Amino acid sequence: MDTLARLEQIIAARRGASPDSSYVAKLNAAGLPKIAQKLGEEATEAVIAALSGSRQELVGESADVLFHLLVLLGAKDIPLADVLAELDRREGVSGLDEKASRSE
Amino acid sequence: MDTLARLEQIIAARRGASPDSSYVAKLNAAGLPKIAQKLGEEATEAVIAALSGSRQELVGESADVLFHLLVLLGAKDIPLADVLAELDRREGVSGLDEKASRSE
Amino acid sequence: MDTLARLEQIIAARRGASPDSSYVAKLNAAGLPKIAQKLGEEATEAVIAALSGSRQELVGESADVLFHLLVLLGAKDIPLADVLAELDRREGVSGLDEKASRSE
Amino acid sequence: MDTLARLEQIIAARRGASPDSSYVAKLNAAGLPKIAQKLGEEATEAVIAALSGSRQELVGESADVLFHLLVLLGAKDIPLADVLAELDRREGVSGLDEKASRSE
Repeated sequence: MDTLARLEQIIAARRGASPDSSYVAKLNAAGLPKIAQKLGEEATEAVIAALSGSRQELVGESADVLFHLLVLLGAKDIPLADVLAELDRREGVSGLDEKASRSE
Repeated sequence: MDTLARLEQIIAARRGASPDSSYVAKLNAAGLPKIAQKLGEEATEAVIAALSGSRQELVGESADVLFHLLVLLGAKDIPLADVLAELDRREGVSGLDEKASRSE
Repeated sequence: MDTLARLEQIIAARRGASPDSSYVAKLNAAGLPKIAQKLGEEATEAVIAALSGSRQELVGESADVLFHLLVLLGAKDIPLADVLAELDRREGVSGLDEKASRSE
Repeated sequence: MDTLARLEQIIAARRGASPDSSYVAKLNAAGLPKIAQKLGEEATEAVIAALSGSRQELVGESADVLFHLLVLLGAKDIPLADVLAELDRREGVSGLDEKASRSE
């Protein structure tokens, strides 16, 4: 079973734990705005690591982005599979470069 | 082969294409700051979709975050596998909640 | 009358204009999530300009941040004066470095 | 003398202080990427306050955005006056809605 799918399961299992014992539970107890904020912050840190940090810092910040994206999706009861299906759909329907036509 | 691994390969293959024919090539031609900017923008859009948008909007923005994270990692020659290994390492060494101990 | 106060008045005057004729009206017609998104995007661009851009780019992106912050405050009917009063209050009560004590 | 101009002077005066005694000095000692990161984080918090928070939270987060923008400009030796002049220039040359033509 792959890393992200396993991580998704672990996050789901921990959502109901005590906020004192689990970071995932603590985030969920804090509420959706706090979870969303963490995703925004980690993305900013990834941006900065990409421009000013080491390779290892970007690896770490990218892991943080993926982790918090999974926490956010979990809080909204959206399976990661739905997001992957959307990526597959874009590729299948119109090619990965679909976005080129709709972007600025 | 899973979606993200396949997407990573496609992105790698398109990096050298003509910027006119490929969004991936266009982003890479624009340079790392532009790629990083797109990741930051898509994360902001995911934050907003989580708080104010529909489920489908969050699915779409999450797909955009993953896509642009892969483009950024590709531009820095960092395999997604390194990021997944970092997620595995955190879980193995100290549990998913490692972050709880180092977070604010 | 200073630049930001004048800008605040102009933004207030244009909010009700036709979205076709005014960027401010267009943003307000698009709604609060879109206005907030623009602030997030401009801040990301300021971050990137600070790390990778020219001095003039950072000046331009900083202007964009201020402009969109005023549009956001206007959309929420919050006078800039309230924000400035908050900055004054922090300084008066506890010194500019109040934040040091509450930050991570 | 107005709030932002005074704040700019205070920030300039504290940049060289001991990082232990001053948040401004601590940020400057941490370096430009950290200062930029704080601006990005505060902007994300302002976005979230606008969509999910109280009026007072948005006032507070907007104050944080302005404060950290001034710290960032100070770290790059860019006077706030240059940013305000850019806002004046846009208005004078082409109207506030200049951006409409180049967006989004």
